[in-house]
Amino acid sequence: MPIPTIEFKNNSIKIIDQTKLPTRYNFIYCKNIQALWKAIRTMQVRGAPALGVAAAFGAYLGIKDFKGNNNQFLKKVKSVIKYLGSSRPTAINLFWALERIQKLAIKNKNKPIKEIKALILKEAKKVFEEDRVISRKMGEYGQPLIKNNDRILTICNAGALATADYGTALALFYKAKEKGKHIKVFACETRPLLQGARLTTWELKKHKIDTTLICDNMAASLMAKGKIDKVITGADRIASNGDAANKIGTYSLAVLAKYHKIPFYIVAPISSFDLKLKTGKGIPIEQRNPNEVTIINNKRIAAKNIKVYNPAFDVTPHELITAIVTENGIIRPPFSRNIQKVL
Amino acid sequence: MPIPTIEFKNNSIKIIDQTKLPTRYNFIYCKNIQALWKAIRTMQVRGAPALGVAAAFGAYLGIKDFKGNNNQFLKKVKSVIKYLGSSRPTAINLFWALERIQKLAIKNKNKPIKEIKALILKEAKKVFEEDRVISRKMGEYGQPLIKNNDRILTICNAGALATADYGTALALFYKAKEKGKHIKVFACETRPLLQGARLTTWELKKHKIDTTLICDNMAASLMAKGKIDKVITGADRIASNGDAANKIGTYSLAVLAKYHKIPFYIVAPISSFDLKLKTGKGIPIEQRNPNEVTIINNKRIAAKNIKVYNPAFDVTPHELITAIVTENGIIRPPFSRNIQKVL
Repeated sequence: MPIPTIEFKNNSIKIIDQTKLPTRYNFIYCKNIQALWKAIRTMQVRGAPALGVAAAFGAYLGIKDFKGNNNQFLKKVKSVIKYLGSSRPTAINLFWALERIQKLAIKNKNKPIKEIKALILKEAKKVFEEDRVISRKMGEYGQPLIKNNDRILTICNAGALATADYGTALALFYKAKEKGKHIKVFACETRPLLQGARLTTWELKKHKIDTTLICDNMAASLMAKGKIDKVITGADRIASNGDAANKIGTYSLAVLAKYHKIPFYIVAPISSFDLKLKTGKGIPIEQRNPNEVTIINNKRIAAKNIKVYNPAFDVTPHELITAIVTENGIIRPPFSRNIQKVL
Repeated sequence: MPIPTIEFKNNSIKIIDQTKLPTRYNFIYCKNIQALWKAIRTMQVRGAPALGVAAAFGAYLGIKDFKGNNNQFLKKVKSVIKYLGSSRPTAINLFWALERIQKLAIKNKNKPIKEIKALILKEAKKVFEEDRVISRKMGEYGQPLIKNNDRILTICNAGALATADYGTALALFYKAKEKGKHIKVFACETRPLLQGARLTTWELKKHKIDTTLICDNMAASLMAKGKIDKVITGADRIASNGDAANKIGTYSLAVLAKYHKIPFYIVAPISSFDLKLKTGKGIPIEQRNPNEVTIINNKRIAAKNIKVYNPAFDVTPHELITAIVTENGIIRPPFSRNIQKVL
């Protein structure tokens, strides 16, 4: 069974507090959009697809108690969506889900407000249910890329904790296991917030997948020793030429994979594509608090007041990507043409 | 003034406890070789040249209270050296210093024991003093590689805390500053033990050098943005073909530098060369405790009982190295020939 990363229950969004894993397995309940905004910003919930699901339910939370006329209601929907969109800038799935809600509200703007509210909740549930189906499809479509005894490197957490189901990259691992393939996963710890160490090792262990934790700077050493057969990661936003933003450190792995002649795959749902962007240069990259780097477990690990560079993501140019797995199938180069086809 | 990383005073080795920096600036005093062995193993003292100095003084500590005949004395010297050599396997400077002591003891084996002891102490002090001179020379010889306004990436701590003086890689930075050049240093935090974050930011800030801390997985992102002009690191052991072992993550930076067409320099004293080794394949790589990766500041950051890969070093093949700076000058490719010449 997948991990219940996110659920909508009794008018609140129930999420696993991912900042506390793996030492504590706590749930938090967001009953209003302020609570959800904070949960997203502080990464209690994270992962591109999960952010889409959270935002969709969040939009409903933001309007469910609204009182007023239809005109005011549409304004309210727009302000709620703008507010939720301000939580994190890079993962496009968040904006994609919010746009679905907004389009729906506009399309039905003259219906009774009670009815529009119900439609919005229904749409949010649809985003959630679709995410589950998409995850399984990606896992299935990705199978030709995974051989028995593969040694696979991944970064951050592109698993059950990042979606409403089995994940993106990790969905391939779970599906491979279902099919009786043995795989060996190397998880990069993923500084500064250690999602690889804290989340990926935790969920892969739960699913009894052979996993070895490494520091991010050890990946090249493993590759040089011939111990990595492929790299598989998720993505937070993919431009129409295939350039892909993902967790900081992904670009580094892609360059290293190229140098060592190792295939580099991305697994991401269609909702991660931003066809308005010609290249990855237009993807906004979130800069996060320096304290994420300088303080670990409440203790300072660097000189006081030292300058810090802390981008949450980097962009891997399409020429370093071997293929992109989606719920519509595997996309291979030339990406500019083939992404259009598959989408 | 350089930082007093290591000193010999009142028959004890006084060292800064580097495991406590930057939050606490404590000294420890090793009065016997067991204490020194532990200080080396736990990295209270670290850095290839500093390990050489520590080992030399350590050898003296091990024999200074010896009572017996000349034959027994030589056996004692050998056993002390064997013991100290078992503390850490990769940095050759440690073995190089111990060999100097052993050779001296063998050469003078028939002299009065009191005299041999005095000669050993004198030799240890010589290793210490030489290290100071060598550091300054490397700093000076490296200057043609450093331009005004250079943005330089480094890893781990190849500074004052790694030697008895200004360091290896960082000696170039200090010398550049003395000469009025402005440089901007990017320090990789260097997981798992965070020597870059804890030590390099601390000592560069003390010397008022413009420093920015990054996580190891952010280096490629900076390179892609054109924000790094060169990479400069130390080394723990260099084979006769120029292959160089250094802190884990160095090889990764060398590959990334190559991909981004950025020069990659190593700064290391002659004592770091191991001419008995044809290539880097023969360099022993220390595997360290998994807890270094899974526990930070006394708190577990990964799933329980997860497997860990934790090599302390990696090997950068000579073809990725632009030049090696030594106290005898800059060595450029072809290394196999030019290392012989300079040494």
